[in-house]
This record gives sequence, structure tokens and C-alpha cells, in this order.
Amino acid sequence: MMNKKNNNVPGSSAAMLLYLRRTLVQQCKAQLLKPFVCLCAFVSLWLTTSAQTWIWYPGDYEIWLSNEMQNRRTERGTFYPVFWKVDSHYPLVDFHKEFDLTRPETVTIHAEGRYSVKLDGKAFPGTPQAIAVPAGKHKINIKVFNQATPPAVFVKGATIVSDSSWQVTFEDKEWIDETGKASDLSATVFRHAGSWNFNDRAATPSAYKLPVTPVTAITTEKVNKGLLVDFGKETFGFVKLHGVKGKGIISLYYGESREEALDTAASETFDRITLDQPTAADTINPGSKALRYVYITTEEDVQLDHASLLYEYAPLEDKGAFRCNDEEINRIYDVAKYTLHLSTREFFIDGIKRDRWIWSGDAYQSYLMNYYLMNDNETVKRTTYALRGKDPVTGHINTIMDYTFYWFMGVYDYYLYSGDKNFLVQNYGRMKSLMDFVWKRRNQNGLLEGLPGDWIFIDWATGLSKEGAVSFEQLLFARALETMALCAALAGRAEDAAQYKTAAAELKQQLFSIYWSDKAKALVHSQVNGRPTENVTRYANMFAIFFNYFNEQQRQAVKNSVLLNKNVPEITTPYMRFYELEALCALGEQNYVLKEMKNYWGGMLKLGATSFWEEYDPSKTGAEHYAMYGRKYGKSLCHAWGASPLYLLGKYYLGISPTAPGYAEYEVKPALGGLKWMEGKVPTPAGNIELYCSDKEINMVSPVGTGKLMITSKTRPVCKEGAAVDKGNNVYEIIIEKDKKYRIRYQAM
Amino acid sequence: MMNKKNNNVPGSSAAMLLYLRRTLVQQCKAQLLKPFVCLCAFVSLWLTTSAQTWIWYPGDYEIWLSNEMQNRRTERGTFYPVFWKVDSHYPLVDFHKEFDLTRPETVTIHAEGRYSVKLDGKAFPGTPQAIAVPAGKHKINIKVFNQATPPAVFVKGATIVSDSSWQVTFEDKEWIDETGKASDLSATVFRHAGSWNFNDRAATPSAYKLPVTPVTAITTEKVNKGLLVDFGKETFGFVKLHGVKGKGIISLYYGESREEALDTAASETFDRITLDQPTAADTINPGSKALRYVYITTEEDVQLDHASLLYEYAPLEDKGAFRCNDEEINRIYDVAKYTLHLSTREFFIDGIKRDRWIWSGDAYQSYLMNYYLMNDNETVKRTTYALRGKDPVTGHINTIMDYTFYWFMGVYDYYLYSGDKNFLVQNYGRMKSLMDFVWKRRNQNGLLEGLPGDWIFIDWATGLSKEGAVSFEQLLFARALETMALCAALAGRAEDAAQYKTAAAELKQQLFSIYWSDKAKALVHSQVNGRPTENVTRYANMFAIFFNYFNEQQRQAVKNSVLLNKNVPEITTPYMRFYELEALCALGEQNYVLKEMKNYWGGMLKLGATSFWEEYDPSKTGAEHYAMYGRKYGKSLCHAWGASPLYLLGKYYLGISPTAPGYAEYEVKPALGGLKWMEGKVPTPAGNIELYCSDKEINMVSPVGTGKLMITSKTRPVCKEGAAVDKGNNVYEIIIEKDKKYRIRYQAM
Repeated sequence: MMNKKNNNVPGSSAAMLLYLRRTLVQQCKAQLLKPFVCLCAFVSLWLTTSAQTWIWYPGDYEIWLSNEMQNRRTERGTFYPVFWKVDSHYPLVDFHKEFDLTRPETVTIHAEGRYSVKLDGKAFPGTPQAIAVPAGKHKINIKVFNQATPPAVFVKGATIVSDSSWQVTFEDKEWIDETGKASDLSATVFRHAGSWNFNDRAATPSAYKLPVTPVTAITTEKVNKGLLVDFGKETFGFVKLHGVKGKGIISLYYGESREEALDTAASETFDRITLDQPTAADTINPGSKALRYVYITTEEDVQLDHASLLYEYAPLEDKGAFRCNDEEINRIYDVAKYTLHLSTREFFIDGIKRDRWIWSGDAYQSYLMNYYLMNDNETVKRTTYALRGKDPVTGHINTIMDYTFYWFMGVYDYYLYSGDKNFLVQNYGRMKSLMDFVWKRRNQNGLLEGLPGDWIFIDWATGLSKEGAVSFEQLLFARALETMALCAALAGRAEDAAQYKTAAAELKQQLFSIYWSDKAKALVHSQVNGRPTENVTRYANMFAIFFNYFNEQQRQAVKNSVLLNKNVPEITTPYMRFYELEALCALGEQNYVLKEMKNYWGGMLKLGATSFWEEYDPSKTGAEHYAMYGRKYGKSLCHAWGASPLYLLGKYYLGISPTAPGYAEYEVKPALGGLKWMEGKVPTPAGNIELYCSDKEINMVSPVGTGKLMITSKTRPVCKEGAAVDKGNNVYEIIIEKDKKYRIRYQAM
Repeated sequence: MMNKKNNNVPGSSAAMLLYLRRTLVQQCKAQLLKPFVCLCAFVSLWLTTSAQTWIWYPGDYEIWLSNEMQNRRTERGTFYPVFWKVDSHYPLVDFHKEFDLTRPETVTIHAEGRYSVKLDGKAFPGTPQAIAVPAGKHKINIKVFNQATPPAVFVKGATIVSDSSWQVTFEDKEWIDETGKASDLSATVFRHAGSWNFNDRAATPSAYKLPVTPVTAITTEKVNKGLLVDFGKETFGFVKLHGVKGKGIISLYYGESREEALDTAASETFDRITLDQPTAADTINPGSKALRYVYITTEEDVQLDHASLLYEYAPLEDKGAFRCNDEEINRIYDVAKYTLHLSTREFFIDGIKRDRWIWSGDAYQSYLMNYYLMNDNETVKRTTYALRGKDPVTGHINTIMDYTFYWFMGVYDYYLYSGDKNFLVQNYGRMKSLMDFVWKRRNQNGLLEGLPGDWIFIDWATGLSKEGAVSFEQLLFARALETMALCAALAGRAEDAAQYKTAAAELKQQLFSIYWSDKAKALVHSQVNGRPTENVTRYANMFAIFFNYFNEQQRQAVKNSVLLNKNVPEITTPYMRFYELEALCALGEQNYVLKEMKNYWGGMLKLGATSFWEEYDPSKTGAEHYAMYGRKYGKSLCHAWGASPLYLLGKYYLGISPTAPGYAEYEVKPALGGLKWMEGKVPTPAGNIELYCSDKEINMVSPVGTGKLMITSKTRPVCKEGAAVDKGNNVYEIIIEKDKKYRIRYQAM
């Protein structure tokens, strides 16, 4: 599969295996050996390289792990859990697969939970750690019960190994019939097993922890009777206290800012350690926290030498890259990278200080940024599973209507960027039941208004109306229905696909007939008591641009009537800035957006930001910047949605994006936006597309698919490796073939 | 509530409190004290008697506990889990209640799980074990996360205590709004907390174990190289080995019969203990087992003094009773009692040796027997919750279509016998979603046939056809729809009630138009390929009698054409004998049924049964009786469904049954069935109805409701305490008032 190469271990070894096989075949041919010898070599090769891994019911480990992670939040020492329904893994799961062995083999079995093993329907005594499987066709069933952590198995034999090709079910629908024979009936819910990278028997899924690495403080100073420790930048982990001795309480007040750490009455997070340690030793605080500063106070009898940090991180490498002649943009890119890394933990979370929860709106942006930086499929899948939870659906995702719709879009995007159709198909049932939930909540006109229990979020913005049927929600609903139509078709549900397609088209028509105002030249904000309001906001209008919902006339009108119109309330969160700037980029306003980027993200850097914030209002000063939600330090100073330049620079400046799943086809529309030059890498399932662009030269190479490079040039571009086809209006197209280096001379407009 | 008095602790103390209050009021009046004094006395009284108890999300503890119990099954040492979907508790639950305090109080809080506490929406720091609640109106929220065991809380203050009046939810739908204030929105799923009898802080629900008591063996003999220990009768528990010493393996082979224990190659259950103990000590085998015999073999280096048993039991007292002049019937009643007690554990299970699972068909009979013996509401409720599990419904209960229908009937029966409407209302949502599942599976004619994954069980019987649309399933379906109509009305869902009523009436009409054969004078067994078969079986016909589905002509015809017709295949399981004999009793055939009871259950006793069996075929001999499912000892010799005389003797001989919920109204139709005299007790929520009946005299007293005593007598009965109204055909009716002793002289026919 296309997405394998960029996966961690299973993909790598599969790719290696393929390579070795090829080599072997060549050797066989060269040496005129009989195919038989090749086959034997293959078999023994397979023996050593098969990627056995812990497997589980797909989504179950992910949901369980998200429960563990999300329930680690504290606020001033108090446990602060989520406020939506939390689901569980199936406590009893059957794992099975059929094998056809050429010779007998011994298979070792490990499980997380109480288990039994059957071969061809017959149980082995006890809980065997190894079974003998004779040659021939055989079916192995392993059934595992575990209430506390997800049932999981690890199987390793010469050829029989546990991997995602195993099937799993939570209801095997097997029974003893009247003749006393056990019989299996093909049940309705057989799925392919879930897995990650637990390829070692000892690496049990339930024991998983993110890795840590020691970090020393930049400065330590005495403030009042405490110790203020500065790690030099926003960071995350477990504070380690060195040379601790005595009896009493140690308090750790964490601060993303110096002010917060020192303000012991108002800092958002703290820990208290009760010490009773006669001889000096080191101690590690069990709770992980976000911080740049930690202010440590001790009771009189307690002594403390100094403090360091065990930095906790998700071990994901950067694949994407961006550099340009503008050092401020480079710095913005680097801080955005760090921001996304900090906010990418077991899952894509909102921010590291406060919620540390998985929010669909935040995650959706992390997915998009991820595709241009780490391109890690596993974190996308885990986050998608965790957000969706299980049936029955009793509320919107995170209780937020808009967040439900982002979830649908995220599933399809993942397919587009990764080419992994299996995940989409496995999730189709959960997509459908979520859409069923939404569908039943429409009002008599088929529109969605907030019902009891629904949160209409849109954005943090003062005075934003949530009354009636908000245009933004209908727009996302239409997009979600379009997504369902695409996914239903991919999952082989033609009838569903047709229904969703019709529903989406009808809703889009309604959207324009109800909300489009010729007077305002915009989609208005809402319909209240059956009548459209005159209120114009940016949300629906900017999304309609990159959803391609406007005709060309509307599109150009909206640019001026809304996006560049200072009378329409400004956006102050990086969250919605993400889409605002995306819309402007989609309109070709890269020059404008570059300036905005420098102003807005550059503005945070000028204030000393070492990671990007949840919200930024340039009109505020000093510690005012740290306040939010009515609390002095309520704002998160490291929020994933602050990292959007990663996405904008990759998609709209380097200009690279897939147009067919997994980059089988893609387009490249470089736009310097006022830069002199830029260069970068965009990850694909097969490796990175590399591009250099100045106003005179474009160089690129791609390991994947067929690309369409679109160049705006005063003159016809010169390229030895491909033909530049004139598409009119100074636009030229060059088809980019895989693994071929292109060097193009042109004249930027 | 009516059902409280017979509940274990909360009810008893509530009743006591009521009694003490009354007494106090009388004293106050007598002594002319001011009401103020009374009030103070009340308050302090309340302090000492309030029934604080551990609470949880209703059904969640029950489901969790059933998972623990059902996953204890082993078969010849191998873990043998259930084959249907197993659900989990909600890992995150909010508990809350509003209080109005006259004076401040300190409240202690304990939880199973990580928790936080809020007073009026504001969180306390950390995880407080005690909070101060000021006077006035206040709301307490406790939110608990626990993945491994159900979130539960225990709260105890002067007046604030955790009990079933608290509300619980798994989705609080609370969020921070734009103004930064936390706000609660009344969520859709607030329920009243579940509880049982964990009234002590230390008695945490997750640590619950059934009690045990030591039992010594009756005989111990050396057989070959092992020790055969006989406990004298069927029993259950943990084998304790005394004076064990040495290094090696001890094997315990359990037998419900001597043959099974000694047949080490075929006994259904065994345990192996690996010993390494240099000095002699006692050891208790960790797994509980059913047994009468245990055969113990040891490796050479192991020494063993003797074995005893820790008998494990559900501590439920007998409330019902039955005695008569026939000692064989008395013995049958006693062994039936013991059988039901052994099969009543944390839940009503099928049998103690093999499955130890909760089966809806088996449980339904246990409920009915329970109402005439222990009358324990809690075990009925727990079993009902456990069987139903949670949404979404993905299969029939236990995968069996008929078992789904018994479940509905069980919910209504519980209401009828207990008067506990709350349980029915709390479960209405789950009743409805289960019926939705069934409804969607009807064929084009509205009938139910077995679809993939469905098990049409009916009974263990050779050659029983499950093809096409079986009349028995349609009949149960109709009854379930009638039940839904009743329950919908009780739950305040008038629209649902009307729909279910119509659906039930239509299906009943279809049942007779399709299956009634004038030729066979019976409902035929099935419709295959759109045509009724000519096959007549007992199932639908006998149920239609006590469901009152036949007209009088059909009813009398079926008695001879089916029930007393030896050409219609005989029933060999006590399971269906239960209903067959019930039908005959409903037809007034108590004399016939008494003989059948003596033959069938008496037959098992003559073979040495100490508890009643899963199946009994008088034509078999010796160890043939122990075989089933193609295995030598496959049969369970202690099966709940073997205990039906408990129900038959209570309901159809003593003749007592409720006609309005909780025995607010009831009828008494004594029938000696050939006995000279009988006497007994039938439990009600308010205590026992006691009855003595000979052919000349009936004495009775009832603590509850209004009874209708129906006497068949040659002459008008003589009764000083009430009038005998002539109802024609030698039937006389006497109205029985509460707490009044009746003594009636009559002449039995």
C-alpha cells in the first residue's frame, strides 16, 4: 500500500523485504538457479523479517489511550476530566486468521488479558504460551478478556505472526448446536485488527509511555523564599528535583510565563509533593506539565539543590521543511514546528498547558499541518478514533456541532494525503451513525440549529451570535454530506453515496438561497425566526472560498466585501486566522498573507513567544496577553492551532497538494508572495517532494505519482526535462514525472 | 415504595425510620412538647439511620460484575468466555444532587476512581475526602473516572448521604461559555443512581465477593493413587487442601457424580496446583467449582492430609415455603429450593458446573421461582441489567431470538411482583432500542425468521425444526409487543404504547390466521416457504394457554390434541416441562401435574439426585444420565430450570399470584391436586401471605393489598371474616383484606 513507506516499522520492513526479494530474484536469474531455491530463500527471508506486532480491536486501544491521556488534566491541583461521553474498549475480543502452512511450526502467543486459544475450533488446554500448528490449512482463534485495558495479542511463529491482516470481532456468534458440535457463523462485524508499532513482545500496548529526555535549566534564581527555574522556552515534562532532603511540602508552580510561575495564587497548574526523606536524593514529580518556568517553594525543613526536567515528547521526525530568504518567516516556521511538536503527544491535542484534550476542531488543523511536517499517519488515525468514540452517538463530537463536521472532513483528507483506503472503509459504519445522529436533528426546513446539549462554537469571539440557524454550520454540514458521498462510494455503498450526494446538493442550494445577500455581497451570518439577519461575519465566507462553493463573481466580491473589509469583525484567534489566510491564499493573495503572517506571528515572536498562542490580540500589552476565560493566566501559550504557517507555507507557497489519493496525482503551484526565494520539502507516502523556487528558477523532484506544475511566468518557462504547456493568462503547465529532476527557468510576474 | 420492605438494608432502615418517627410523634403529642423538640429529635435520628450507600451509574456495576462472573468459566482447565457482545461501564460519570441544609455540615467523600468535587459549580482543590457545605441550597457534583472498575461514590454527612436519589450522567454537557463562566445545561441522560447494599465505606463495590462458609467432607476414600472426597451432595465453592507439603503438581478433578470425578480424562472441570512448600500448610484453590466429589491426585513428592470446602453462596433468606402431606412432594420442594439457591449467585445463572453464564431463558424461570421463594429484587434487577447490556444492540440476548422476548416479559413481571415502577422506567430506553432491533429484522410478511447470527433455540430436543418462521417465536414476539405496550404506558410514552398495542394485535391475528390448524386442532410449528407445515409441537400451544391467547374452544381442544397427546413429541428438559406443566395447571389439571411432578422430579430423586438436572430422560440408565452435548459428563446436574416445582406449587397449588403491581391486588385459587392438605407462604413486598388448605378448611392471612380468594366447593363456604359470593359452577369468592385472619370451612369437590 502506498502509505506504508512512511509508516514506522511495519512499512519499513515491508519495503525492505520487497527490496530484498527483488535482489534475490535478480541473483537467482543471474545464477540460473531453479525457482525452487528462490522460494526457499524467500521463505527463510520472510522468517526473519515478518513484522509481528501487538494487535487489538481497531479503535479500542486508541479510545482507551485517549481516556488515559485526557484524564490527566488538572487545574490548580484538581482533577479536571472531559465533559462528554467517554467510551470503552470491548472487554472480550476474538482474534483469528486462517493460515496455509507448507510445514509445521511452533507459534508463541502472548496476550493482554485472560485468554484461550483454538486451532480449527478446538481449544488447547489452559492458556498456552506456545502451540504447535501442523502443515496445511488451519484457523487460529485467540479470545481475550480484559476489563481494565484493551484485549491484545502478540503471536510469533515462523510464518504465523500477528499483524493487521488478522480479523477481530467482539461478537463471534458461535454456539454449540443440537448435535453437540461447535459451529461458527460468519458474523456481521469482522474487522481487520488495529496495530501500531508494538513489535516486541515486551512492549505491551497498555504499558506505553511517551519517551523522555533530560533537560537542564537555563537559569535558576532565588525569588522571595523560592527558586524560579527557567528552561529558556516553552516545554513539557516532569520536573526532577535534585538533592531533596527533609520533611514537609514542596510546591511547584508552573508558568508558561514568568508572571504565572511567580503568581502562586493564580497559576493555572501546580503540584504539591509531601516529602519525608532523611538523606538527600532526587525525586521526579509524577505529573507531566507544560511550563517554561517553575517556581519552587519549600517548607522550612526541606532542602533542595536544584531542578531539571524530563522533557516528554512524541518521537516523530520532521519530513517536511521550509526555508526562504526572509529570516523572520524562517523563525516563524521554526517556532510553528516546535508548537506542533509540543502539541502532538499520544494524540493531536489542543494545547499543552490547559486542556490537553483532543478537540476535533483543533485536531483537524493539526492533521493538515502534520501532512506538511511529520506526515505521521498513526497519530491521525489514533486521534480520529479517539474523537469519534463508539456508538451510540449521544452528542456532537466534543459536544460541538462544528467539530462533528470537521471530523468527517478529516477522515477524507487522511485518505487523500495518505492513500490509506482501509482506514476509511473500517470507519464507514461510524461515519454513517454519526451522520444519522446529525440528520435527525435538522429543523423543519432541514437546517441545523443548536438543540439542548449542542455547543455552537465557531470561534472564541466577543459578541458572536449563535442564535437560530447559523450559515457557517450549514456550510460545514453541506461539506460533511459531500464527504459522506465520497466515502460511501469508496466503501462500496453506492446507494448511500447517491443519497448523500443529493442531500449535499440540496443543502448547498438552500445555503445560497437563504444566506447569500446581493446587498452585502456575502453570506450573512444566520437565519433567526425564519429570516436571514444582516450580520456579516468572516466564517462562512472564507470557508466557501476554499470549498469552491462560490461562483467566480461571488468569489471576487467576497474578497473585498468580507476578507479585506475592516468593518467585518476581525479574527483574533490563530484558529480562524488559519482559514482566513487559507482563503486569501486560495484567492492568490500570498503577498498580503505573507505580510499578515509577519505581523501576526511575528508579533508574538516580538513579545518573546517561544511557541504560538491560543489567541493573540496585538492591542493588548504585557501580562494582559496571558489572560483568557476570565482568568489571569487562562490563555495557553502553546496551542496547536497557532502553528498554521506550517500548512500555509507548504500548501500555498511551495504550493504542493495531492489531487488524487496518496499523491498518485498532485499539483504544484509555487507562489513566492514577495519572497526572493524559498525551498522546501513536502512529505508524501513515498518520500518527499523537493522544491526550490526563486523568481527565475524552479527546481523540483518527486518520488511519487504524476504532478502538474503550474507556473505563472512572463515568458514561456524553459525546461529540458518536460514541456511547458501554455494554459493562457501567463500560466504554464509542466507534467512532473516520478524520480526525475526538473530545472526550470522562468520569469516571475 | 411498596417494594422497599423486602429489600435488604435501605428498605429496612427506611421502614425503621418511619416507625421511629411515628413513635416520636406520638411521644411528642403525649408529652405536649413543642414541635421544635420533635424536629430536633428527627434530625438527630436521621443522622444515625440515614442509609448512605455506594452508588454508581445504574446498570454499570451490574454489567461489570457479570463480566467478572461470566468470565470465570473454565472447561477442562481452559478459559471459556461467552460468545456474545460484552459491554463496559461508563468510565467517566458525574454524580450530583441538590440539598437544602438548615445548618452547615461536613461531608466525607470516597470514590472508586480518580475524582473531583464541586459545590455549586466550583471545584474544591485536589481530591477532597471531606468538604464543608454551608447552610442553604447547594448542589454537589462528584465526577469520577475509572477504566478498570465502575466509577462509584460513597458520601456521608449529617444529612447529605449518597443514595439512589442522586442523579448520574455519563455526559454532563457542561462547558465554558464565551463569558468564561462555567454553565450547566440540563442534559438528556440524567438517571437515578444505582445501588445495592454496600452501606459501609470499606465495602467497595469492586471488591465484592460472595460469602463462604467451611464445609467438611462426608467421606474420603483412597481410589487408586488418589483421594476421592465426597461432600454428600451437590455443592459449590473452593476446595481447601489441608496439610499440604512437598514439590510437584496436585490435580483436582471435580465431579457432580462419582463417575465424573474418577474419570480424569473426561471430567468437565479440573484444576492443577503447582506446589513448592517445604513445610505442611493449608492451601485454598483460587477457582470456585461445582462438585459433589473431588478426586485428588498428587505427584510423588507431594503429601496431603485431607480436603474440605469453602462453600460459596448468595446470602438470601427463604421467604416462601411449602409443606403438604406427601413427603415425596416435600422432598421435591426442598431439593428444588437447594437447586435454585445453588444457581443463584451474583446473578441468576443457568447451572453451577458448566456455563455459569446468565442466560435469559433460564433467568426468566429463576425470576418466577424467586418470586415464590427468596423474592429478592436485587438479583432480578442485576440479572436484567446484565442480560440487556448496552446500546447499540448488535444481536439477540445471548444471540437467541426467544431469549430476547423472555427479557421483555421479565421486566414487566418484576414490576408486577415487586411494584417497583422506577426500574421499569429507567430501563424503558433499553427496552425500546432492543425492540427496534427486533422490529427491523421482520421479513416481508412481518414475521421473524432466523437471520445470520440468530439462534432459534426453543429447547434442547432432537429433530426440532428451526426452519422458516416458527410459530413459537411469533407468539413470544406478540407477547413482547404487548409487554412493550404496557411498559410504554407506564413510562409515560402514550404514542409508543398505542403503536405497540396495534402491532401486537396485528401479529396475534396473523399468528392464528397462519398457524392455527382446524385439522390438527393446534397451532402448527412453522411456516416454511410461505406455507404452514403440518408439524405440531407443544411449544406455541402450551404458551398460548397461559398467555390466554386461545378462545375457550381452542383451549380445551389443545389440551387433548397436544398436551395430553402422546403422539406429539415429548419434552425432556425441565426447562420446557416448566411451561408444559404451567399450561396444564392453568387448565386446572393439578391432579395430573402432581403425578407428573412425582414421576419426573421424583424420578431424579430416586436416581440419587441432590439437586435437579439440566435434562432428564427416564429411559436412560446409569451414567448415561450424565451425558449431554456429545460429552460423557456434559450434563449439568444442578440447573436452575430444574427447580420449577417452586413456582408451580406456589402459583398453582397454593394458587397465589398478583393481579396488580406489588400485590396491591392478587388472587388466591388453592388447588390440592390430590393432596390431603398443604400449607405455605408466598412472599410479597410487604411480607408473606400465609395459607393452609385441606379439603375441608382454608386458613389465610395477608399483609398486603386486596385478595380475591376463589374456592371451588360443593357447598357454600362458611367464613366469619368475610362473605363467600357464589360465582356459579361451584365457585365462591371471598375478598381478603389486609392483616385479617380468615378461617374458611368448605367441601372440596
